[in-house]
Amino acid sequence: MLIVGELINASRKAIGEAIRVQDAEAVKKVAIDQHEAGAHFIDVNAGIFVGKESEYLQWLVQTVQEATDAPCCLDSPDPAAIQAALSVHKGTAMINSISLEKARYDVLLPVIAGTDLKVIALCMSDEGMPETADQRLKIADRLINGLVQNNVPIGNIYVDPLVQPVATNKDFGIEFLNAIEAISTQFKGVHTMCGLSNISYGLPNRKFINQAFAIMAVAKGLDGLIINPLDKRMMASLITAETLNGRDDYCMSYLKAHRAGLMEF
Amino acid sequence: MLIVGELINASRKAIGEAIRVQDAEAVKKVAIDQHEAGAHFIDVNAGIFVGKESEYLQWLVQTVQEATDAPCCLDSPDPAAIQAALSVHKGTAMINSISLEKARYDVLLPVIAGTDLKVIALCMSDEGMPETADQRLKIADRLINGLVQNNVPIGNIYVDPLVQPVATNKDFGIEFLNAIEAISTQFKGVHTMCGLSNISYGLPNRKFINQAFAIMAVAKGLDGLIINPLDKRMMASLITAETLNGRDDYCMSYLKAHRAGLMEF
Repeated sequence: MLIVGELINASRKAIGEAIRVQDAEAVKKVAIDQHEAGAHFIDVNAGIFVGKESEYLQWLVQTVQEATDAPCCLDSPDPAAIQAALSVHKGTAMINSISLEKARYDVLLPVIAGTDLKVIALCMSDEGMPETADQRLKIADRLINGLVQNNVPIGNIYVDPLVQPVATNKDFGIEFLNAIEAISTQFKGVHTMCGLSNISYGLPNRKFINQAFAIMAVAKGLDGLIINPLDKRMMASLITAETLNGRDDYCMSYLKAHRAGLMEF
Repeated sequence: MLIVGELINASRKAIGEAIRVQDAEAVKKVAIDQHEAGAHFIDVNAGIFVGKESEYLQWLVQTVQEATDAPCCLDSPDPAAIQAALSVHKGTAMINSISLEKARYDVLLPVIAGTDLKVIALCMSDEGMPETADQRLKIADRLINGLVQNNVPIGNIYVDPLVQPVATNKDFGIEFLNAIEAISTQFKGVHTMCGLSNISYGLPNRKFINQAFAIMAVAKGLDGLIINPLDKRMMASLITAETLNGRDDYCMSYLKAHRAGLMEF
């Protein structure tokens, strides 16, 4: 299970302020905490700073990588910001994200083509947000084919089928889950990845819903998540779900987490 | 989601003692508590009392149904005990369970044939306990066909694919989950059902593992469980998993449970 830590996002008040005043120590602490809690990639987002996004995204990458040896997940639709961040990034970055929206696809594809970058392929098109598993599968098919034809190895593609709120439509949960299963089954070697929190939008006890949905998604084949890795119960749920899903020889990961006190609440 | 309350089982010390001294009030309290917590059926088991199982199972049914209007799940491999219990049972009972073991199959089938009883069909045969999804599917196929040919409506059959401990073999969880999905998909109208707790045998934090596994099984199509309905977090997990699985119009069940304080821990 690939974990991307989501906390260094300018839309969060404390992070937005830390970026504005260039408080490197504050950013470094959040990077270190997430990495130590199990994040493999650290997401960096400076999207609220119009006109300064490139400069700030670059600074975030440098700051995070001064503090940790984790690679970053570059969270922007702007190829200029991505390029600026890549120019200082050490190791193999992840791009968050390309989609089938023409304005985004056409400018990001040249940045990714032929590289060894990892890339999140978001199931969104100019026809709007997909609702059914079938709609997601069609977009995924075009994204995967487009990327592979442009020399992106299929194992570097992380399809995000796009979570939508179950409070809006009772089938939005299961359609997403069925998309995960169909994509994992039909495209050998491709990964799946998502943010979760939209699922519980508008409902009470959101963390509890998000944890249950993460466990269900793992059962359907999900192998990547963009989450808050400091949520201990979420991380324990993921370790347990992986153990139950046949991905944990001799329950070693589960038992190691238990001995480290990570399964106590 | 059909919930069978598992607590009235003679192998539990307090229940065994209550049966031995014929303490009806103790049994009634456990029946009422489980029914109020959401159990649709109350499992009754007097299996430890060799030679007296029929008498005691009958007494348990009478005692439970004096206290609640819930039907019982008659938990015995012995057709004589089942018949004794059925003779006093009000409403439609569930039989727990028939299997493909010849000694059990041949004597229980005549009791069930042509009735409107609900029946748990346990994926066990004289060849031993199944390990793979495919082995479970083959046993399920024979059990379902045998029951249907003996005039048991397919909607009254609850296939239990038999949970085995993931600590024994890392694939025992996923093989079970894949069996749930295959049976739900391939036998239109049949139900699936299981007890859970074997999954976590030999591991620490068993309740946490059991909850995660229940959520995963719902994602794969499980629609019945034999559990302790007084485990509030388990019940909240099941309500949430059903909501996320497209079985809860307008999230009404989830919101109702939340308003009743059932989602607070």
